[in-house]
Amino acid sequence: MTELRQNLITRDWVIIATERAKRPDDFTKPQKSQIVIPSYQPDCPFCLGNEHLTGPESFRLKDNNSWKVRAVPNKYPALTPIGEKVRNIEKTFRSMAGVGFHEVIIEHPLHHVTIPLLDIKDILNILRVYRLRYSHIKQDKRIQTILIFKNHGKGAGTSLEHPHSQLAATPIVPYQLRIRIQEAMRYFDDTGECLFCRTLADELAAEERIIYASKHFVAFIPYAALSPFHTWIFPRRHSSSFDEITESEMLDLADNLKTVLGKLYYGLNNPDYNYIIRSIPTDEQRTDYFHWYLAIVPRVSLTAGFEMGSGMFINTAVPEENAAFLRSVEIPK
Amino acid sequence: MTELRQNLITRDWVIIATERAKRPDDFTKPQKSQIVIPSYQPDCPFCLGNEHLTGPESFRLKDNNSWKVRAVPNKYPALTPIGEKVRNIEKTFRSMAGVGFHEVIIEHPLHHVTIPLLDIKDILNILRVYRLRYSHIKQDKRIQTILIFKNHGKGAGTSLEHPHSQLAATPIVPYQLRIRIQEAMRYFDDTGECLFCRTLADELAAEERIIYASKHFVAFIPYAALSPFHTWIFPRRHSSSFDEITESEMLDLADNLKTVLGKLYYGLNNPDYNYIIRSIPTDEQRTDYFHWYLAIVPRVSLTAGFEMGSGMFINTAVPEENAAFLRSVEIPK
Repeated sequence: MTELRQNLITRDWVIIATERAKRPDDFTKPQKSQIVIPSYQPDCPFCLGNEHLTGPESFRLKDNNSWKVRAVPNKYPALTPIGEKVRNIEKTFRSMAGVGFHEVIIEHPLHHVTIPLLDIKDILNILRVYRLRYSHIKQDKRIQTILIFKNHGKGAGTSLEHPHSQLAATPIVPYQLRIRIQEAMRYFDDTGECLFCRTLADELAAEERIIYASKHFVAFIPYAALSPFHTWIFPRRHSSSFDEITESEMLDLADNLKTVLGKLYYGLNNPDYNYIIRSIPTDEQRTDYFHWYLAIVPRVSLTAGFEMGSGMFINTAVPEENAAFLRSVEIPK
Repeated sequence: MTELRQNLITRDWVIIATERAKRPDDFTKPQKSQIVIPSYQPDCPFCLGNEHLTGPESFRLKDNNSWKVRAVPNKYPALTPIGEKVRNIEKTFRSMAGVGFHEVIIEHPLHHVTIPLLDIKDILNILRVYRLRYSHIKQDKRIQTILIFKNHGKGAGTSLEHPHSQLAATPIVPYQLRIRIQEAMRYFDDTGECLFCRTLADELAAEERIIYASKHFVAFIPYAALSPFHTWIFPRRHSSSFDEITESEMLDLADNLKTVLGKLYYGLNNPDYNYIIRSIPTDEQRTDYFHWYLAIVPRVSLTAGFEMGSGMFINTAVPEENAAFLRSVEIPK
């Protein structure tokens, strides 16, 4: 018999295949003959020395005459910062010009590095650039939502090997975010509490799904995780927007992220994954009901017709077992 | 510059990469050296003669001493028809036993066939079994939603080659369906019209996204298609639930489905795809605002962090071009 669980934050129902669930290490990526990735690739636009291969830099975190982190326009932007926001409505057809920002954040000058193997100081620098670009782009009145995300590995949709993240700033509020906000608002109106703070308190009390708890952040596998190893990192302090993060919180997040991605790296043999920072739309700022967070989705399973047709999910792993497995993974010093 | 389009039925925003869109035939699956699939596989549980390899048959469409279509329980069911529907609510953790049905519908006794190459009569038989199982399972008071879907090809999540569909009957209404119904209801309250009927009328008037229009059904690529070749087949007659389809409508749907899947088969070289029949929850029946339909999603592109993080989509193809391409694909007689 399976178990249905409802994720109160996304409102999605998940079927947890408790009986014939896969064991955590069934998701370990097969060990391929080790390909050594070079630290420099002559044709890589993100490598140190190849800066002329990208569009005009929008930001550089300097390192004497060189750089630590760069932000550049996406070569194939989904959104461009040109023109006005005009909606076209004709019959049931609604459109708008693709006004917005689509940047690449190059995480490191070297080609072969990856976040779990970086120094905490280097990860802190990446987070600093996330925050700086977020705060800067937020000033643009055409923008309503800013999304920071990372695609790691081909299975997660990336085409470039050099470590990088992306920032997309959209002129609309995605419907999914709208309805999650409405639900969080309703929860607050019903209970006087932030649904995310309440979930975090419940997960901390339950303990069994916690992966890693640091001073300012808690990483856990949600009770109704949508897929195997689906991980959320919540700030302990209630805050609606990522750009409100403080310097000391960022340092702690760098440690938390390094630890969690490290456990995935060593425990599942460097799986493909996406991570996403979810914030409130830019028109709002401090709310009692919305709480920003970072979601990590390892790409270790495939969605099929059932998920597409229902918006429900089948998770072939048990969240408690996944969390216990990750807690037990030791990261070599 | 890209274009944002909003799909009024799903409410999702889609970024259409109009300028650097891929051409339709960029999505054609590479031609592999032709593997001849046998008509019988000794170890295939769905092949004629291997009926003992499945669980107890829930339905058989007979053919003298043999069968045309069979319904059997899924060997690894996501839901099982045992026990009561009881919700467990403890703090923010909500669960329910996985009560429901999860059946496999074996589409044909032969191993190597595929819908676009079948006779219309054979496809009609598959649809008949869909309807029979839908109507039968709907009687179970524990069931709230019935989903019929098909995963074709490994990239669409199937593990068995023998042609089959699935039926999943859930004890809850998936949240995605709930909110789509709410939106459709609001549209009806605002306008006095069914949003789906209105969309169909607008698409028929615009013409450019129609793939194939038959007597009772219209296949089209929606204005804000979420992914390349994302296709909807709408019944012309307003009806909320698939099981209200008549015998003559089913015959017409068999022709329409064969044609559309045939155009995908010949035009894109047998791509992996999912199709899904979306109906209203079983507690409701005839409503003015909800309209059942069949959605086909070829798996020709990958979703990444952007889609996951926003619930928005990037479609690297232009719906009008995709539709024109499919209209032009000729199906050999």
